[in-house]
Amino acid sequence: MLRLSPPGFLRFVQAQQFDIFYGGGEANVAVSLAQFGVESWFVTRLPRHEIGEAAVNALRRYGVNTDAIIRGGDRIGIYFLETGASQRASKVLYDRTGSSIATLQPGEVDWETVFEGGKWFHWTGITPALGKGPREALREAARTARRMGLTVSADLNYRKKLWSEREAQEVMVPLMEHVNLCIANEEDAEKSLGLKPRGTDIEQARIDEAGYAELALAMKHRFGFAAVAITLRESFSASRNGWSAMLLDEKECSTPYRSTRYEIEIIDRVGGGDAFAAALIAASLTENDSRKALEFAVAASCLKQTIPGDFNHVSTAEVQSLMAGGGSGRVQR
Amino acid sequence: MLRLSPPGFLRFVQAQQFDIFYGGGEANVAVSLAQFGVESWFVTRLPRHEIGEAAVNALRRYGVNTDAIIRGGDRIGIYFLETGASQRASKVLYDRTGSSIATLQPGEVDWETVFEGGKWFHWTGITPALGKGPREALREAARTARRMGLTVSADLNYRKKLWSEREAQEVMVPLMEHVNLCIANEEDAEKSLGLKPRGTDIEQARIDEAGYAELALAMKHRFGFAAVAITLRESFSASRNGWSAMLLDEKECSTPYRSTRYEIEIIDRVGGGDAFAAALIAASLTENDSRKALEFAVAASCLKQTIPGDFNHVSTAEVQSLMAGGGSGRVQR
Amino acid sequence: MLRLSPPGFLRFVQAQQFDIFYGGGEANVAVSLAQFGVESWFVTRLPRHEIGEAAVNALRRYGVNTDAIIRGGDRIGIYFLETGASQRASKVLYDRTGSSIATLQPGEVDWETVFEGGKWFHWTGITPALGKGPREALREAARTARRMGLTVSADLNYRKKLWSEREAQEVMVPLMEHVNLCIANEEDAEKSLGLKPRGTDIEQARIDEAGYAELALAMKHRFGFAAVAITLRESFSASRNGWSAMLLDEKECSTPYRSTRYEIEIIDRVGGGDAFAAALIAASLTENDSRKALEFAVAASCLKQTIPGDFNHVSTAEVQSLMAGGGSGRVQR
Amino acid sequence: MLRLSPPGFLRFVQAQQFDIFYGGGEANVAVSLAQFGVESWFVTRLPRHEIGEAAVNALRRYGVNTDAIIRGGDRIGIYFLETGASQRASKVLYDRTGSSIATLQPGEVDWETVFEGGKWFHWTGITPALGKGPREALREAARTARRMGLTVSADLNYRKKLWSEREAQEVMVPLMEHVNLCIANEEDAEKSLGLKPRGTDIEQARIDEAGYAELALAMKHRFGFAAVAITLRESFSASRNGWSAMLLDEKECSTPYRSTRYEIEIIDRVGGGDAFAAALIAASLTENDSRKALEFAVAASCLKQTIPGDFNHVSTAEVQSLMAGGGSGRVQR
Amino acid sequence: MLRLSPPGFLRFVQAQQFDIFYGGGEANVAVSLAQFGVESWFVTRLPRHEIGEAAVNALRRYGVNTDAIIRGGDRIGIYFLETGASQRASKVLYDRTGSSIATLQPGEVDWETVFEGGKWFHWTGITPALGKGPREALREAARTARRMGLTVSADLNYRKKLWSEREAQEVMVPLMEHVNLCIANEEDAEKSLGLKPRGTDIEQARIDEAGYAELALAMKHRFGFAAVAITLRESFSASRNGWSAMLLDEKECSTPYRSTRYEIEIIDRVGGGDAFAAALIAASLTENDSRKALEFAVAASCLKQTIPGDFNHVSTAEVQSLMAGGGSGRVQR
Amino acid sequence: MLRLSPPGFLRFVQAQQFDIFYGGGEANVAVSLAQFGVESWFVTRLPRHEIGEAAVNALRRYGVNTDAIIRGGDRIGIYFLETGASQRASKVLYDRTGSSIATLQPGEVDWETVFEGGKWFHWTGITPALGKGPREALREAARTARRMGLTVSADLNYRKKLWSEREAQEVMVPLMEHVNLCIANEEDAEKSLGLKPRGTDIEQARIDEAGYAELALAMKHRFGFAAVAITLRESFSASRNGWSAMLLDEKECSTPYRSTRYEIEIIDRVGGGDAFAAALIAASLTENDSRKALEFAVAASCLKQTIPGDFNHVSTAEVQSLMAGGGSGRVQR
Repeated sequence: MLRLSPPGFLRFVQAQQFDIFYGGGEANVAVSLAQFGVESWFVTRLPRHEIGEAAVNALRRYGVNTDAIIRGGDRIGIYFLETGASQRASKVLYDRTGSSIATLQPGEVDWETVFEGGKWFHWTGITPALGKGPREALREAARTARRMGLTVSADLNYRKKLWSEREAQEVMVPLMEHVNLCIANEEDAEKSLGLKPRGTDIEQARIDEAGYAELALAMKHRFGFAAVAITLRESFSASRNGWSAMLLDEKECSTPYRSTRYEIEIIDRVGGGDAFAAALIAASLTENDSRKALEFAVAASCLKQTIPGDFNHVSTAEVQSLMAGGGSGRVQR
Repeated sequence: MLRLSPPGFLRFVQAQQFDIFYGGGEANVAVSLAQFGVESWFVTRLPRHEIGEAAVNALRRYGVNTDAIIRGGDRIGIYFLETGASQRASKVLYDRTGSSIATLQPGEVDWETVFEGGKWFHWTGITPALGKGPREALREAARTARRMGLTVSADLNYRKKLWSEREAQEVMVPLMEHVNLCIANEEDAEKSLGLKPRGTDIEQARIDEAGYAELALAMKHRFGFAAVAITLRESFSASRNGWSAMLLDEKECSTPYRSTRYEIEIIDRVGGGDAFAAALIAASLTENDSRKALEFAVAASCLKQTIPGDFNHVSTAEVQSLMAGGGSGRVQR
Repeated sequence: MLRLSPPGFLRFVQAQQFDIFYGGGEANVAVSLAQFGVESWFVTRLPRHEIGEAAVNALRRYGVNTDAIIRGGDRIGIYFLETGASQRASKVLYDRTGSSIATLQPGEVDWETVFEGGKWFHWTGITPALGKGPREALREAARTARRMGLTVSADLNYRKKLWSEREAQEVMVPLMEHVNLCIANEEDAEKSLGLKPRGTDIEQARIDEAGYAELALAMKHRFGFAAVAITLRESFSASRNGWSAMLLDEKECSTPYRSTRYEIEIIDRVGGGDAFAAALIAASLTENDSRKALEFAVAASCLKQTIPGDFNHVSTAEVQSLMAGGGSGRVQR
Repeated sequence: MLRLSPPGFLRFVQAQQFDIFYGGGEANVAVSLAQFGVESWFVTRLPRHEIGEAAVNALRRYGVNTDAIIRGGDRIGIYFLETGASQRASKVLYDRTGSSIATLQPGEVDWETVFEGGKWFHWTGITPALGKGPREALREAARTARRMGLTVSADLNYRKKLWSEREAQEVMVPLMEHVNLCIANEEDAEKSLGLKPRGTDIEQARIDEAGYAELALAMKHRFGFAAVAITLRESFSASRNGWSAMLLDEKECSTPYRSTRYEIEIIDRVGGGDAFAAALIAASLTENDSRKALEFAVAASCLKQTIPGDFNHVSTAEVQSLMAGGGSGRVQR
Repeated sequence: MLRLSPPGFLRFVQAQQFDIFYGGGEANVAVSLAQFGVESWFVTRLPRHEIGEAAVNALRRYGVNTDAIIRGGDRIGIYFLETGASQRASKVLYDRTGSSIATLQPGEVDWETVFEGGKWFHWTGITPALGKGPREALREAARTARRMGLTVSADLNYRKKLWSEREAQEVMVPLMEHVNLCIANEEDAEKSLGLKPRGTDIEQARIDEAGYAELALAMKHRFGFAAVAITLRESFSASRNGWSAMLLDEKECSTPYRSTRYEIEIIDRVGGGDAFAAALIAASLTENDSRKALEFAVAASCLKQTIPGDFNHVSTAEVQSLMAGGGSGRVQR
Repeated sequence: MLRLSPPGFLRFVQAQQFDIFYGGGEANVAVSLAQFGVESWFVTRLPRHEIGEAAVNALRRYGVNTDAIIRGGDRIGIYFLETGASQRASKVLYDRTGSSIATLQPGEVDWETVFEGGKWFHWTGITPALGKGPREALREAARTARRMGLTVSADLNYRKKLWSEREAQEVMVPLMEHVNLCIANEEDAEKSLGLKPRGTDIEQARIDEAGYAELALAMKHRFGFAAVAITLRESFSASRNGWSAMLLDEKECSTPYRSTRYEIEIIDRVGGGDAFAAALIAASLTENDSRKALEFAVAASCLKQTIPGDFNHVSTAEVQSLMAGGGSGRVQR
């Protein structure tokens, strides 16, 4: 997806230039994984023209394998992003009608070939919201992945500008059957799955830990996930957020493990959730200790929010340094 | 329409920023007219969101009345423009599928109210190429304008990326009935109306004046236009063009009047034809001498091609100065 | 007025470019009103050249009616603005000697025509500080406005780089006779009217609420204003301010109503007071509840300070969303 | 003087940023001289504030001695420059009313101290056009310089936006008495001194060599100059100029020596004349052969016109390389 | 190699920013090949830090396989490039002392593995000029390539800032034994191999075709090349060049074939020779007709010179369109 | 030294441009001193080419005397700086191998001439870390300075990327003999001199005041410094730091004086220590009260950290205003 942002803190109506970034849920995860040294493939559909090519290049530049990307359709999905500050929220305008991915036909991707030799398949709740074609393709993919023994993770990622809660639940609930690791933020579970945390007011940046613990248990219980991870964002303002997460899995089976909490001076919060998912996957592939994996994921996604654009340009070493207490921002020289 | 261009001479695949301009055939004409002090209204349909608002603002900024613009639909048409140089042509990628103007419904614009008190209605061949709705709306508009006594001008503006020659001719030929002044470039008449100039090879920058004279006569004869104006671009390279025009009207009824010819070091040739149309209209409204009107139009559109963006930011005085021999580029200080 | 700012946080001596904004007290108010859907006219005098035209365009772009702007004189007033951060204050250098507005002659503006059909006239204390001509023109305007039944609001806006406190008081005190709504900040009343709040040290970001309440009462009592509004800025640093206001009017006649207080991470605080005045006017035109009007004004001007430039690019809906508790900066998508 | 230019080829009404350059006739000469290794002092008056300081810094940066610059007055003179292309001329808007240099008082500069140990005093016809104060100061300076044995050169530099031909001649003619080397362009002699070349049409880029030869002789004869140098610009367009010069001095006493002629693809022609004057002075200080000096001056000023800004950033070696035939633009690597 | 260029036509001493490009002889060839759909690998040595990584990314972005790049050493070679115009030549400052590639040790690259399955090995005369290590490594590479049956092409690319003609000849002459296709420009053969064209003055943009034909024959005769290609640049100025080439091979064995000649309005001529080499290789891999291959190479490298940066971002279709007469720069829309 | 930074908060791998700044320990001190009106000379060695010249110009621009700078050697030292935010630290990549200053030979600088008439010599611990040549030259300089009666100050400035602690101590300890005023930060004394503060954890932004007091006493006792100044940075994050200092001298001989503590919202912390040193020197030259001098130094260096680049562009008046309580960031207008 092409992201167009007015420079700095200019509003849309003031802009005379757009900064170009490429991004989107699964793309962001793929790039993050490649930064951590995990071989990652990104599957999508992009138009044949030069803007489509530039999107492919953006992924290739950061080490993602783009061989499975299908070229076709009329246009690349665009989103316009205006960066907020203080009490003024960032604003997203979607322009994805008729995009190449939205007009993907079931059967266009040969999932068996794609998954050949792979270990993990990750998808987000944005894809099925784009239309009937991508929804069907996703169902095929999830089914095929599980059949071929891949671990499947899903980031619920509810987007109210793409579909209603009712529509989302009709589609998402059945898809959960194929999911091993379910990732959600404070509001996703309610909007996408119909499960609500107790006693939390997101707008007021208040987090009720017990409520989320119950929620995680309910999710695990209802859908039989191997693991549930929930990111917890406290939005004090567009410039300052609290950031942490909790994880419930086989080991932490009754009380979720709550991570370190970071207070972030936000540069660009878009892609924070994707950075979390990618880091959790990367750590899960190499790390037995799920608490450490969660800490790695929270630290990695904290760093993402200090970097412009959708992608998380951080190395494993940088994340580990933050986990080890290096968040003081001292210049290394 | 939103135009996005990589800065300078960067290609699409190199760009990290897009320069934002707003433009499009009729919008460019409206802005030009306002610069010449002619009260001008622009009619289109734009989405309600901030990018739609920015497009309205761009017109308002330069004095166009935007009260008749309808707000609705999903998206603004976009075109990506890469600026060429020397042997490398500029490149346009259209992204206008599903744009607010393409999904305009006949009857949405109340043309009688729009034309109330007006004198002139100008349209281009791009509008009917956008879809059934705009095509119908245009038919209504042209019919209504003629009925209400407005002069109607049409710039044929054939765009091969929007429709085939056959489609174009099926739609454009019947529309000619409502046209007083027909404006075309070297290839439009052939592609849009099926009439071909003799002995000209556009790619080779060779202009056969006699061939174009015959063509103008044929157009006038076949469709009964009060006047026919043809712009003649000699493309030596993306950086250097010859530019002139010819006019056939009641006075110049057998041999078209051929204008002064300018050799232009191109900054941005997009909008050159629109600047020509606008200046011809502006001059026709105040000037009895059609040769002078043509000279004004050619000079004005020559200057456009030295200015970045779609719009022609020149005053009447600046055009007259060029007509009076002031094309030497001496600094005025 | 033309505002020239080094990009980002560069100091004047480092700059190789200036960002261009247009602004100035009353212009900012006019633009804000237009954003809220209030038809607004801006009256000033600008040179005939292209920089003057660009200033007109900047207003027109954002929907202000510029028909009453007089073109004449030699130059546009300029102010250079360097954006501060943390302990380093923003710095303003005025370059307005001999500007077109400063050389305005009494009688040049036909106020009766301007005010015909109007409801409200707003002016600021900067205008009379510019010279004898604008001072006289303002007196005519205020008198005419009151005679024709318009509500008159004045924002005291003392500027120590333009005149001394003594000069200011000599001019401003008599002008108060024509004012219905008087707007001031923490120091204006003392500098412009000779009335001092008790127990407040602006530099130390300490606000003595009782002192300001007394001050509002004193102002109302002495000049017979229908309403007095005081904005209260607590300057912790150039990057972080507290922001609130109080209002005394017929209903809140003995104890001013104190608004919600926002803590702002500042992007550009210039124009905050003008945004407050505009929003208070807009709300007063449609809203009976003066407390709500004040809350609207404080929220609107809070948002202004998160936007680069002098103008407040926010819609009524955005302000209402902040009033309803939406200041958490959560991305809407 | 502060120069503000829209980036690239944008017109004033399109600009959202200004590129900052510092320049002005004599300042440009001083910087050029310093680049050639000649110790040079620049005398002017600049305001005390940071923009004045930035102007001092710009000179100091390139090696000019700024110790004799007086700090005082209200504002720095500004000129807005829009860069033309092809048939569209560059446009200059002066904003120098009330500038610090225009309000300089006679006697403020201690010329004796300034000239102590100096060899050459150069001035341009812009200074006396700025007002009574600078005119008087200039008279003092010229007289003092001659009395102290310095060579005095004057570049006539007529500016029609600053004064009429009649005013110019009343002031300039008497000043010629103190001038050794008089430098003029194609139109200066007529406008400033009332002497007209025969058979030349500047706008048409036609140069009548014989006419200019006569003119040079007439100037030398009438005012007794030791030498007369005339630059000859053929303006084909804003993008392409012919450039050469002629020199008449003791040796070339009846027929001026005509230099090599360069055809220049213009980047920024402002400051071309100043670069010529500076290089002629530099060469005259070290070179006995006046033909070589003229060739050096023409080559140096040809190079200036390929460099953005007012200043000529070229070394002696670079000029000599062009004189030796190195104008082919081959990369040196 | 990291290339740092002041924006636009600014000189080094004026720059406040550098545009970043990555490039260098062989890297440019590799990128060009990838654009033409040829699988290409680039072998070099780059430091482990982020700037080294950015160089890898730049290649990967455009489809080059970077798996054989060795990470090590202290620094990436830098070159500063100032873009010339008209009579002012572009200027290159090398800063490559101690670069990772210059400190490459023989044996560090396992050439057998690199060449496994490959068809072609291309190198330029810059590599052996960097030092003893790269020189040795190159010798190994060329020998191994020939032994393994790859075609070897060499672009002589003499750089006088890297070594003297004597040093160059001592190293280059023996290396010619392993070369099948030798590519040179107007001066390379003389500087690198000691063979001189007759009657040509490069600085004067005069090309003596017969002289170059003799030169090609002499090269072929002396070193037994299968083919010799010579690019012919006529430098009229930094802004305008003539561009053509000649080819001598088995078929054109006595008189070289001379290509079409393009007159180019230069945007960035750096990398023109590399674009030529790449296109000649690409065409040679698929095309039997060596004249067509040469025409493809000349057209491709003509287009390169209209694109900023070192890399040639053109597709096979774009080159073919120019070959078919499409150099008129007409917008495609 | 040339500093190259990606704009804003972009990471190295994202950058398409570098912002250019010139800086480096002693250069920063020299510029700061010049801003405070102290005549300052900077001694270094820079290559003869244009990038070297640009470095000279950057110093000259801000009033530093550059006459003693030696031109020679191959390259200018470069450092790449990526600006951090929140938990992401700024990152420095040094590229100074083989720089002109690193290859300086002892004896190249004639220190006696340089110091003639001077009062103070300041050096930092970076210089001896660059190599044998600069180390020897520094020893000569320090000895000569003391012999000629200059005060010598040294800022320890340990850089772990340049040398190990052991190497540093071997060189630095003997150099202390020539130092009057020793300046250190929280970790320098330990790394450079082997003396460790008690109970402080820099990464955790915890400062143990008593520990530093002991450290200052130990330094003074061991090396006999006339004065010891220690800056104390509390790094809460890359965006927010605490900043203060302590001073031990003849008057504060047993308990160091602890300065005001500023909490800084960081724009650019690089050069903060140099700004401190410069301000302490400037104040020491004019001020008898060492507490006031320390307060001046802390306030000046606090302001530095709100300004982009290495240099501290603040005036004496601005520092005094902050000392007087003006840190509220109120706009002055």
